[in-house]
Amino acid sequence: MNERIKKRSVKAGLPPGSLIHIGEKRVKTSRIHLIDYDENAFQEKTTATLEECYPFKDTASVTWIDIEGLRDIDLLEHLGSCYEVHPLILEDILNTDQRPKLDDMQDYLYVVLKMLDFNPAGNNIISEQVSIIFGKNFVISLQEGREGDLFEPLRERIRGNKSRIRKLGPDYLAYAILDSIIDRYFLILEKIAEKIEVLEEDLISHPGPEALSQIHDLKMEMIYLRKSVWPLREMISGLEKSDSELIRPATKIYLRDIYDHTIQIIDTIETYREMLSGMLDIYLSSVSNRMNQVMKVLTIIATIFMPLTFLAGVYGMNFKFMPGLNSRWGYPLFLVFMLLVGAVMYIYFKKKKWL
Amino acid sequence: MNERIKKRSVKAGLPPGSLIHIGEKRVKTSRIHLIDYDENAFQEKTTATLEECYPFKDTASVTWIDIEGLRDIDLLEHLGSCYEVHPLILEDILNTDQRPKLDDMQDYLYVVLKMLDFNPAGNNIISEQVSIIFGKNFVISLQEGREGDLFEPLRERIRGNKSRIRKLGPDYLAYAILDSIIDRYFLILEKIAEKIEVLEEDLISHPGPEALSQIHDLKMEMIYLRKSVWPLREMISGLEKSDSELIRPATKIYLRDIYDHTIQIIDTIETYREMLSGMLDIYLSSVSNRMNQVMKVLTIIATIFMPLTFLAGVYGMNFKFMPGLNSRWGYPLFLVFMLLVGAVMYIYFKKKKWL
Amino acid sequence: MNERIKKRSVKAGLPPGSLIHIGEKRVKTSRIHLIDYDENAFQEKTTATLEECYPFKDTASVTWIDIEGLRDIDLLEHLGSCYEVHPLILEDILNTDQRPKLDDMQDYLYVVLKMLDFNPAGNNIISEQVSIIFGKNFVISLQEGREGDLFEPLRERIRGNKSRIRKLGPDYLAYAILDSIIDRYFLILEKIAEKIEVLEEDLISHPGPEALSQIHDLKMEMIYLRKSVWPLREMISGLEKSDSELIRPATKIYLRDIYDHTIQIIDTIETYREMLSGMLDIYLSSVSNRMNQVMKVLTIIATIFMPLTFLAGVYGMNFKFMPGLNSRWGYPLFLVFMLLVGAVMYIYFKKKKWL
Amino acid sequence: MNERIKKRSVKAGLPPGSLIHIGEKRVKTSRIHLIDYDENAFQEKTTATLEECYPFKDTASVTWIDIEGLRDIDLLEHLGSCYEVHPLILEDILNTDQRPKLDDMQDYLYVVLKMLDFNPAGNNIISEQVSIIFGKNFVISLQEGREGDLFEPLRERIRGNKSRIRKLGPDYLAYAILDSIIDRYFLILEKIAEKIEVLEEDLISHPGPEALSQIHDLKMEMIYLRKSVWPLREMISGLEKSDSELIRPATKIYLRDIYDHTIQIIDTIETYREMLSGMLDIYLSSVSNRMNQVMKVLTIIATIFMPLTFLAGVYGMNFKFMPGLNSRWGYPLFLVFMLLVGAVMYIYFKKKKWL
Amino acid sequence: MNERIKKRSVKAGLPPGSLIHIGEKRVKTSRIHLIDYDENAFQEKTTATLEECYPFKDTASVTWIDIEGLRDIDLLEHLGSCYEVHPLILEDILNTDQRPKLDDMQDYLYVVLKMLDFNPAGNNIISEQVSIIFGKNFVISLQEGREGDLFEPLRERIRGNKSRIRKLGPDYLAYAILDSIIDRYFLILEKIAEKIEVLEEDLISHPGPEALSQIHDLKMEMIYLRKSVWPLREMISGLEKSDSELIRPATKIYLRDIYDHTIQIIDTIETYREMLSGMLDIYLSSVSNRMNQVMKVLTIIATIFMPLTFLAGVYGMNFKFMPGLNSRWGYPLFLVFMLLVGAVMYIYFKKKKWL
Repeated sequence: MNERIKKRSVKAGLPPGSLIHIGEKRVKTSRIHLIDYDENAFQEKTTATLEECYPFKDTASVTWIDIEGLRDIDLLEHLGSCYEVHPLILEDILNTDQRPKLDDMQDYLYVVLKMLDFNPAGNNIISEQVSIIFGKNFVISLQEGREGDLFEPLRERIRGNKSRIRKLGPDYLAYAILDSIIDRYFLILEKIAEKIEVLEEDLISHPGPEALSQIHDLKMEMIYLRKSVWPLREMISGLEKSDSELIRPATKIYLRDIYDHTIQIIDTIETYREMLSGMLDIYLSSVSNRMNQVMKVLTIIATIFMPLTFLAGVYGMNFKFMPGLNSRWGYPLFLVFMLLVGAVMYIYFKKKKWL
Repeated sequence: MNERIKKRSVKAGLPPGSLIHIGEKRVKTSRIHLIDYDENAFQEKTTATLEECYPFKDTASVTWIDIEGLRDIDLLEHLGSCYEVHPLILEDILNTDQRPKLDDMQDYLYVVLKMLDFNPAGNNIISEQVSIIFGKNFVISLQEGREGDLFEPLRERIRGNKSRIRKLGPDYLAYAILDSIIDRYFLILEKIAEKIEVLEEDLISHPGPEALSQIHDLKMEMIYLRKSVWPLREMISGLEKSDSELIRPATKIYLRDIYDHTIQIIDTIETYREMLSGMLDIYLSSVSNRMNQVMKVLTIIATIFMPLTFLAGVYGMNFKFMPGLNSRWGYPLFLVFMLLVGAVMYIYFKKKKWL
Repeated sequence: MNERIKKRSVKAGLPPGSLIHIGEKRVKTSRIHLIDYDENAFQEKTTATLEECYPFKDTASVTWIDIEGLRDIDLLEHLGSCYEVHPLILEDILNTDQRPKLDDMQDYLYVVLKMLDFNPAGNNIISEQVSIIFGKNFVISLQEGREGDLFEPLRERIRGNKSRIRKLGPDYLAYAILDSIIDRYFLILEKIAEKIEVLEEDLISHPGPEALSQIHDLKMEMIYLRKSVWPLREMISGLEKSDSELIRPATKIYLRDIYDHTIQIIDTIETYREMLSGMLDIYLSSVSNRMNQVMKVLTIIATIFMPLTFLAGVYGMNFKFMPGLNSRWGYPLFLVFMLLVGAVMYIYFKKKKWL
Repeated sequence: MNERIKKRSVKAGLPPGSLIHIGEKRVKTSRIHLIDYDENAFQEKTTATLEECYPFKDTASVTWIDIEGLRDIDLLEHLGSCYEVHPLILEDILNTDQRPKLDDMQDYLYVVLKMLDFNPAGNNIISEQVSIIFGKNFVISLQEGREGDLFEPLRERIRGNKSRIRKLGPDYLAYAILDSIIDRYFLILEKIAEKIEVLEEDLISHPGPEALSQIHDLKMEMIYLRKSVWPLREMISGLEKSDSELIRPATKIYLRDIYDHTIQIIDTIETYREMLSGMLDIYLSSVSNRMNQVMKVLTIIATIFMPLTFLAGVYGMNFKFMPGLNSRWGYPLFLVFMLLVGAVMYIYFKKKKWL
Repeated sequence: MNERIKKRSVKAGLPPGSLIHIGEKRVKTSRIHLIDYDENAFQEKTTATLEECYPFKDTASVTWIDIEGLRDIDLLEHLGSCYEVHPLILEDILNTDQRPKLDDMQDYLYVVLKMLDFNPAGNNIISEQVSIIFGKNFVISLQEGREGDLFEPLRERIRGNKSRIRKLGPDYLAYAILDSIIDRYFLILEKIAEKIEVLEEDLISHPGPEALSQIHDLKMEMIYLRKSVWPLREMISGLEKSDSELIRPATKIYLRDIYDHTIQIIDTIETYREMLSGMLDIYLSSVSNRMNQVMKVLTIIATIFMPLTFLAGVYGMNFKFMPGLNSRWGYPLFLVFMLLVGAVMYIYFKKKKWL
C-alpha cells in the first residue's frame, strides 16, 4: 500500500506533465489490443506498436485500443500526440496511485479507477489502475498489465454479430468496460464476506490473538477498499450528469445502473466495517471473559486454601500446651473442622455466583 | 445476509440486462393475482400465465398485476415486452439484493424496496424484495413469493365498493402498497423494542456472556434494518417531489405521510442503536464490577491470612529457645494476638471501603 | 418510551386516514376551552361539545379552540368536517407518537410537537403531544389531556385588555402557544443540569455502580429529549421561512426568536451529552483506580509475607542438623533477620512508588 | 456554567419581550461611557443617565454609547424607545445566556457574543455577554459590567487624531469592538495551551488521578469554548455577506479578517480537543502499564516463593521416616536445592520477558 | 506547535493592520531574489533592497520577487506601498500562524499556505509559512527564510529557454510555486508511511510503552498535517473556480491537477489516521494479552501449590496420633499423593485451555 506513495516523491520538483511511470513495472513490453467495429464490420489485431492504429483514427467506426503495460513511455507520447491527449492526462495515466476521477477535456473524457481482483494464491486483493479515454469514435483503455484479462468476456460480446454493443457508440463501450470492472468488486466483497463469516465462527469457538490480527487485517482491507470505491461514486455520478456531447442520452440509464451498483458496494463496505467493529468488541470482551474465568478460579482456590493452610499452621506451632494435641481424636476432629470450613466457603461462593 | 452478495458474482462478465434470478427461489411456480377496477366495476382473477392480463392492458380501468415468485424468467420477459419495461429494470427485479430506489422511466415509474416481516418461529426478521412498476393505468407488483400475504387487507379494501381507493388512480394504489409495506416496519420495531426491554432487565439481574451476544445480534439486526430503511427515505422523497405526470397532486399528500413514517422509523432505529451502545457500556462495566468484587474478596482474604499464616509459621520453627513455648498461656495468648491482628486488618479494610 | 411504538402496529393494514387513538387515554371525556377575541371584544367558554364553537367560525375575530383529551373520536370528526381538516391530519393528531413537524395545507397550517414537563413525584420527564391548527381566523390546539395546564398564563394575557396579543392575529396566538411550550423546555434542562451536578459530586465522593446506572438513565433521557427537539428546529425554521399568507411578516421576528431558543436548547443538550460522556470516562477510570489501589495492597502484602512465610517454613523443617536451632540467640536473630527482609522490601516498594 | 440556564425558567409563561435580567448582577449601577467623533471633532463623557446621550442622536458624527451593567431596566427601556430597539432585542440583551448571533433589523444590526477573559486568580476563564447595536450614526455596546475594560485601547485609538477609525463609520467601530473581543480569545487559547503542555509533562513524569481530573476539566473548558465560538463563525459570516446598507463595502474586508481569525480559533479548539483525547488514551494506558508492572512483580514473587514454601512445608511434616532428616548434609543440600529451584524460575521468567 | 499561538496575543488591542512579525526570526536580514522573464528575455538578481525591483513594475514581462525572511518590516511596508498591497494582507504575511487561504483583492490574489519539509536531523517535520501575491505582471512570494530552497528547480526551469513556463503568465508561475510546495507533501507522507511501517513491525515483535508514545506522536503529527492540508483543498478549489481575470482558463486545468493532488493527500492522511487508530487497538490488546499470559501463570502456580502447601501443612501439625506418621511408607506415599493432586490439577488446567 505504501510502495506507491514512496515513488511519487521521485517527481517532486519536476515540471508538470513529466512522464515518469510510478509503480511496479508489471510487464516487460506493452501490448496493444486493437478492436474496430461498427454494426456490420469487425476487425481485431494484437500488436506492439501504435502505428497500426493510425488508419482507424478517422473512420466512423468505433476503435478500441487496449494497452497493457505502461513501461513504454514513447508509446504513450505517440498516443498523446496522435489523439491530442493533454500532457497532464498522460502524467495521470503513469502515476498509478490516482484516486478514481473524471476529467472532461471536451474532445474526450478521461476516467481513471482501480481494477481489483482477488488473488487466490496470496488470499489477498490485488489492484491495478485502469485509465479510459474516450472520444467521438475511439476508446483507449490503459492497464498496468497484470496477468489475466477481465475484458475478454466483453471482447467476446463485441465479436458476436448480434450483440447490442455493436450498434452503440464508444460511450457505451466505455460504460461496458466500467461495468466489467465494477462487477468484479462484488466478487471481492463476497470473498471478504466469506472471511468475515469464518472469522465470526472462529471468534466464538476459540478467540485468540490471531483472530485479533485477522480483524485488523480485514479492517485495513476495508479502509483500502473504501478509499478506492468512495470517489468512484462521485466519478460515475459525474459521468451520468455530464453535459458532454460524447455521452448519448441512451447511455445514461446504463450509467445510472452502475451508479446504483457503486452505492450498493459502498453500503456493503460500510456494513462490513460496522460488523468488524462489532466483532472487535466481541473479541475483546470474550478475551476478558476468559481472563475473568481464570481469575475466579484463582480467587476461589486461594480463598479456600489460605484459611485452611493457616489453620494447619496453627496446629503446627510448637507450643507445648495446645488442646487436643495428645488426644486420639484431636487430629480427625480438626480435619473434619477444616473440611467444614472449606465446604462453607465453597457453598458461600456458589451462592454468590462466583463459581 | 451474505448469501445475497454471493450470488451476484455469478453475473460478472455478462452483458447488462441479462435476466438471471439472484436469491432463493421461494416458490416453485409464479402465481399471478390480477385485479381490475374503476369506480364502478371490479374484476379479480388468479392465474399462472400472463395471457389473461393482456385484455386489460388498454382499458382505462386500473389493472393491478401482483406476481409472486420470480422463478419464471419467461413470464418476466413477456411482461417486459408487453408493458415495454426496460431490460435493466427487469434485471433489477431479479437481482433481489437491490437497495430501495426509484427509477423514473417516463412511461412508468419503477420502485423497489424490502418487505420485512417478523418470523415468530425463528424469532428473526425475514425480508423479501418487492418491485412496483406503475404507469398510466396499471400497477405491477413483484414479490419473491414468501408464505403469507401482506396485501390481502388492501385487496379487501378494493373489493369494497365504497372505498376511496376505487375512485383513485394507479398512483394511489402504488402508494397504498408502499403504505402497507412500511406499516409493517413498525411491527418489526416493536418486536425489537420488546427484545431490548427483555435484554435490559436481563442485564441488571444476571449479566452473562449470552447477554453480550444478544446485544451483538440486535446491533447486527439494526445495521441491516438501517441499510433497508435509509435509502427508503430518499426514494419516497423522490416520489413526492417527482415531476412525473403519473403522480397526481392529490396523491402527494399521502406520499408525504409515508415519508413522515419513514423519518420516524429512521429516528427510532437511531434511538435503538444508541440504546444498544449504552447497554454495551452497562454490560462491560457490570462485568468488570463483578470481577472487581471477586478480586476484592481475594485481596481481603489474602491480606488477612497471609500475615496470620506467617505468624503461625514463626511459632512452627524448631528453635529450642523461643519465648512462651513451654508456658501454659503461650498458645492461647498467641491465638488472641493473631485474632487481634486479623481483626485490626479487617477493620482497616472496612474503613478504607475495600470490603 | 416503547409503549407508543407498540400501539402503532394496531393500525397496520388499515386504510390511511383511519382515526384510531394511539397512546394512553389520559382523560375520560374531552374538554373544550373556547376563547374568542379581537382588539375590543373577548369571550370565553368551557364546554364539552363542539356545537358551541360553530357560531364563531365565520366571524373576523380570532377563535381559539383548545381541546384536552383525544378520546372522543366523534368530536374530532366533527371538527374535521367543520374546519375542513384533511383526514391524514386528523390521523396524525391521534397518533401521539409524531415527530415534531409542520404541514402547510394552504387553508391552514398544521404543527405538531411534544409538550414536556417535569414530574416531581417520579423525578422524571413527562411528555404530551400537542397539535396546533391555525387558519385565517382560528387556532385549534389539541392536547392529550394531562393534569395541569401550561396555557393558563397565556389565557390570562388574552383576558387582559391591553396586551399586545389582542391586537394581533391567529399566527401570533399560535406563536404564543409554541413559545409557552418551548419555554418549559428550559425548565427540563435545568432539572437535568441539577441532576448532572449532583451526579458529578457523587462521582467524586463515592463512585459506585448506581452512579453508572444514573449516568445511563440521564443519557437515555438526553436521547429522548434530542429526538423531541431536533425536528423542532426544522419545524420552526419552516414556519419562519414559510411563504404562507397565514403568517404575517410582523410575526416572523417572533418565530425567529423561538428558533433561537430551539437552537440554544439543542446546543445545551449536546453539551450535556458531552458532559455525560466525560463523566462516564471519569467513572470508569475512578473505578479502575480504586481497583488498582486494592490490587497494590494485595501485591505489597503478598510480596512481603510470602518470602517471610518461606523463611519461617525453612526453620520449621525437621532436619536434625540446622545451624542455630539449639542456640539461645537463634530465634531472636532470625526474627530480626526476617524483620530486616520485610523492611527492605517495604522500602523498595516505597521507592518504586507502588505503595 | 449551569447557573445561567437555571435562571431562564423564571421567565417561563411571561409574554415575549418581558425585560428581566438573567445572570449575576455584576455592578450596582449602570455606567454609561459616551464617545462622539468624526474626522475632526471628538467628545467623551462618563455619565449614569441616558439623557446626556440624546443630543447626539441626530448628528452626523458617530456616537458610541458603551453601557456597563444591565441592572437598570429603566435605562434599557429608555434606550429602547429612544433608538427604537425592538422589545425582543432588549430581552435578548438581558438574557445573558445568548448564543452568539446576528439580527438584521433593517434600521440597525444587533450582534451578541461572549467576551472571554482569563482570571489569573482562579486560573479559569470568565465570560461576559456583550451586545452591540449599530445603525447609521451610532453604536451601542452593552456589557454585563465585569471589572477591567477590554475597550480602553480602542478608545485610545479613537482619541488619537490621525487614526483610521476616525475617518470611518459606525460599521468600522462595531468591527473594531468585535476585533478586540476576538483578539482576546487567542490569549485564552494560549493559557489553555500552557495548561496542556504542563499536563503533558505531568502525565509522563507522574500520572495520577489528579491528571485525569485536569484532563476532564480542560475538556469541559473546551466544550464551553467551542459552544461560544462555533456560532461566532456563522454570525461574522452573516455580517460579511449581509446586504444591509449599514455595512460599507470597505468594511467587509475587515470582517473577512476576523472571520479568518474565528476559523483559526475553531481550528485550534478542535486540535486541542483531539490532543486532550490523545492524552486521555496515554493516561489510561500509562495507568494500566504501572498496574501491569505491579502485577508482574506480584506474580514473580508468588511463583518463586509458593513452590519454595511448599518444599519447606514438605520437610516440616512430622513423618518419622524421611530421607536426610538425620543426615548432617540434609539441611544444607535441601537449601541448595531450593535455591536452585528459585533461580531456575527466575531465569525462566527473565527469558519469557516477564520481569 | 504552541509557540505560534503564544505570540499572537502580543497583538491584542493593536489596531488592525499593525505590522508585527509573529514567529521565530529565521534569518537575520531579508534576501530578495528577483527574476524577470518573458518568452524571449530573462533577467535574474539577488539583492537586499527593494529599490532594484521598481523598474520592473510597469513592464509587460513577468516579475517574480522572492523574499526570504520577514524580519525587515520596512521592506514589507515599501513592498506594500509599491504594489498597493492592503495592510491586512501585510499583517497576514507577518502572522506566520495563518490557515491556508485565498483572498481575492481584485488587482491581485493573495494565497498563503504552509511549506512543509522533513528534517532528517530531528526526524521531524518542519514548517514554514509561504505567502504568494500575484497580479497582472508580477508574482511576489514571501518565505520565513528557512535553510535550503524548494524553489531552485523551478528557477532552473525558468532559466531554460524553451520551457513552457516562459511562455505563460504569472498565474502559471504562481501555480508552479504551489505545485512545488504541494509535491513536497508527498515526501512527508512517505516519511510518515515509513515510520508507520517500522512501528507496525515493532508492535508485533516487542510491544512496549515506547510504541504507545510513538503512536501518540504520529497521531499528533497527523493532526498537525491535517490542519495544514484541509484548508488547502478549499483554497485551491477557490483558485480553480475563481472568476478573477488574473487566472487564465488555460491555467485552470493545472490548478485542477494540484486540487486532485490535495484530495489525494487528504485521503492518505485520513487513511493513516485510521491505521494509527487500528494500531492503538492492536497495541492495547497485545499489552493486555501479555498481561493475561502472566496472570494465567500466576493462577496456575498458585492453584497447584496452594493445595499442596496445605497438605504439607496438615502433616506438619503436631498431633500425636496421626495415621502413618510412624509408618515407613507414610512419607513416600504422601509424597506420591501430593504429586498426584498436582498432576490432576495440571491436567485439568490443560484441558480447560488455561495453560
